[in-house]
Amino acid sequence: MLEELKEKVYEANMLLPKHGLVTFTWGNVSEIDRESGLFVIKPSGVDYEKMRPKDMVVMNLKGEKVEGDLNPSSDTPTHLELYKAFDKVGGIVHTHSSYATSWAQAGRNIPCYGTTHADYIYGQVPCVRNLSKEEIDEAYEKNTGLIIIDYFKDKDYEAVPCVLCKNHGPFTWGKDAFEAVHNAVVLEEVAKMAYRTELINKDVKEAPQELKDKHYYRKHGANAYYGQKSNN
Amino acid sequence: MLEELKEKVYEANMLLPKHGLVTFTWGNVSEIDRESGLFVIKPSGVDYEKMRPKDMVVMNLKGEKVEGDLNPSSDTPTHLELYKAFDKVGGIVHTHSSYATSWAQAGRNIPCYGTTHADYIYGQVPCVRNLSKEEIDEAYEKNTGLIIIDYFKDKDYEAVPCVLCKNHGPFTWGKDAFEAVHNAVVLEEVAKMAYRTELINKDVKEAPQELKDKHYYRKHGANAYYGQKSNN
Amino acid sequence: MLEELKEKVYEANMLLPKHGLVTFTWGNVSEIDRESGLFVIKPSGVDYEKMRPKDMVVMNLKGEKVEGDLNPSSDTPTHLELYKAFDKVGGIVHTHSSYATSWAQAGRNIPCYGTTHADYIYGQVPCVRNLSKEEIDEAYEKNTGLIIIDYFKDKDYEAVPCVLCKNHGPFTWGKDAFEAVHNAVVLEEVAKMAYRTELINKDVKEAPQELKDKHYYRKHGANAYYGQKSNN
Amino acid sequence: MLEELKEKVYEANMLLPKHGLVTFTWGNVSEIDRESGLFVIKPSGVDYEKMRPKDMVVMNLKGEKVEGDLNPSSDTPTHLELYKAFDKVGGIVHTHSSYATSWAQAGRNIPCYGTTHADYIYGQVPCVRNLSKEEIDEAYEKNTGLIIIDYFKDKDYEAVPCVLCKNHGPFTWGKDAFEAVHNAVVLEEVAKMAYRTELINKDVKEAPQELKDKHYYRKHGANAYYGQKSNN
Repeated sequence: MLEELKEKVYEANMLLPKHGLVTFTWGNVSEIDRESGLFVIKPSGVDYEKMRPKDMVVMNLKGEKVEGDLNPSSDTPTHLELYKAFDKVGGIVHTHSSYATSWAQAGRNIPCYGTTHADYIYGQVPCVRNLSKEEIDEAYEKNTGLIIIDYFKDKDYEAVPCVLCKNHGPFTWGKDAFEAVHNAVVLEEVAKMAYRTELINKDVKEAPQELKDKHYYRKHGANAYYGQKSNN
Repeated sequence: MLEELKEKVYEANMLLPKHGLVTFTWGNVSEIDRESGLFVIKPSGVDYEKMRPKDMVVMNLKGEKVEGDLNPSSDTPTHLELYKAFDKVGGIVHTHSSYATSWAQAGRNIPCYGTTHADYIYGQVPCVRNLSKEEIDEAYEKNTGLIIIDYFKDKDYEAVPCVLCKNHGPFTWGKDAFEAVHNAVVLEEVAKMAYRTELINKDVKEAPQELKDKHYYRKHGANAYYGQKSNN
Repeated sequence: MLEELKEKVYEANMLLPKHGLVTFTWGNVSEIDRESGLFVIKPSGVDYEKMRPKDMVVMNLKGEKVEGDLNPSSDTPTHLELYKAFDKVGGIVHTHSSYATSWAQAGRNIPCYGTTHADYIYGQVPCVRNLSKEEIDEAYEKNTGLIIIDYFKDKDYEAVPCVLCKNHGPFTWGKDAFEAVHNAVVLEEVAKMAYRTELINKDVKEAPQELKDKHYYRKHGANAYYGQKSNN
Repeated sequence: MLEELKEKVYEANMLLPKHGLVTFTWGNVSEIDRESGLFVIKPSGVDYEKMRPKDMVVMNLKGEKVEGDLNPSSDTPTHLELYKAFDKVGGIVHTHSSYATSWAQAGRNIPCYGTTHADYIYGQVPCVRNLSKEEIDEAYEKNTGLIIIDYFKDKDYEAVPCVLCKNHGPFTWGKDAFEAVHNAVVLEEVAKMAYRTELINKDVKEAPQELKDKHYYRKHGANAYYGQKSNN
């Protein structure tokens, strides 16, 4: 069942240690098959070195396990809510990558200081609020998804494919699992450089709007001209 | 004698350079066999590249060498005191890992800024005081163990499986040598992110208590649901 | 056509990931054949792992593609302007290397704090201004080249073989592609140490002029004596 | 001539890139044969990847090349002066290692914040003054050696086997080339942790004297007990 997708989600998960984004089992990747409404996700707490494609867990959008011997990632309810609300999202990643998590722990949005950021993310990387005790007790992982969705209710989640959860860490997304991983790598690099930028110049300002526009639209939309296709 | 344990302690020691926690010989791992009351520990000052399982040293809880051609780690009396006082501890690690040691040198507890920390350590990582000149002169390594034990006399050493010794470095522990190494890796990552968190936001507050509770108990105790077993 | 040069430019591009200067496709190297007036440059947005020498693109100084199946780097017009203005430059590199880009994002020149810097770069690494909205809209990449050229109009671009573009990242150059890559590595190391230097001593001063002179002229000009040739 | 020593000095030089202490050719190691009064040193500006044992250069203490096809390191006169003044030194290393060089650029001694430092270096790592213009013009590399020697004229260079040259970088030494390289690695780690320690606690104090004494004499002198020999 969804064997190709399990293979792909497995490979996307294995990119996390390759790119230095995870320690131990602190990360997970999923991808949804929009036709069947099923998504495939990493099992919970399984070592990357021992994990195999057949260990991937298949879930439906009611949160029921459809196939798989292992428990799905404990963050599965967050992925599920995001898939339900963001219908153009095909893949989701959660990590505790070091720099992005440090910004999340600091409780700050990441300002856009340059074109590396602007090439991929239109505006600041938002840091969403803590859950209340009631929200945690009721349904922690599900409500984590809901506050992300609430933040984006009047914003373009495709133009800002990432978020920081306060005192926790980042989620990123994309049209499939690989693009979501790509965005997780970008976010970590952007977080690292923003951290250093502020230490070099404590009075630094964000990049000018016209530069942010130029770089974002150089890579996105009808007039994009970066790369080998008209729309990269 | 205890051949399997020597092999295991050797392997646990070899994980320290693999995880980037040691330079040269600056670290040691031990594990105790509670039945016989003997523990196995790394020899002192031996290169990781040249070390073999048979070089591991077997000690009893009186501090006598029971087997082994080499001198045990100079930190052996610290391990010994911890094994005597913390009866649920099976493995102990000491390193000079870079970020944890920097906090120890700074003489500060590591605040809990996020869920990475809360997943493993319930509350701050304590930094215990310097030994006095008398304590150093009398029995440095033994007294290092005793001030750690004194700190935990009214606290749960299982919920906080690590400590910083001021101007020195970290000790971590666990149910066996591998878990103690795991906790040493966690501590280093937590120390690194706390350092960056404070540089990103100098007025940062610790994570809310309810979030710390949620993450700690998601992984520990009767209601744990992270991973593949009911109690991970 | 220019097969040897394509091979060389390919190899120079492959040095960027080897030296840790690029993430994904965020960098490009070119070299010019001054006799024919043609330059060879990396294609746009192609993975380093999949790139081959035959993928290199040949351009003329009018900005026309002379050979190659793929689109040239989107930064091609910047390279072109620099080749036209700096006639002793044979190779050019652009990256988003982490420390140099952080200084560019901070909008600061890199002061000369020591001999590592002085060995290669005579004086500060300049950070040139943002383009105006008009300059961006008219010809972003071309005008990026023109503000670099404007900065150097009364300065020695051979003695300062690098520049930071504000809120963007570094360009470096040299007598050929390999020297330009060499200078990109130097710049990243210099940027890293200058960052740390200021955090160690916020009141730090630049290196004395006589030390800067000594080191620069130890490696450059008629009286150079570093290395194996009279003029390295 | 001195074939074994050339092999050893070659191997010691190759440890510099292995331990991440050098970029390109920015470092050199030498060792002296006290019986013949000759020392062997790395050639100037030769790539580590291409260097071979036969490329090592043999010098006498008058500064004359005794054997070798290549020019010796441009820092040779500094090594020479140190060998003449420090008669218990057998090996010398110079690098531009990143953290130690950052302290040198900042013009600050490295305070002793912990036992990692105290295990190897008794007291602060000194940062010696800039040379005057006259000293540079007269004999830059020789005078670099002389100001180091002047600093140590009433101090124990065996107890502090390293120095920072202001706005330049570190020199380390030891009983032979390997110990000098070992001390270069220690210095870099100590410099890194001191940097982070001050960022974690800007009001941090040095380690207590009794702790510094304990650790230094645990590894050095008649009562040493670290490692496998009575005097490690």
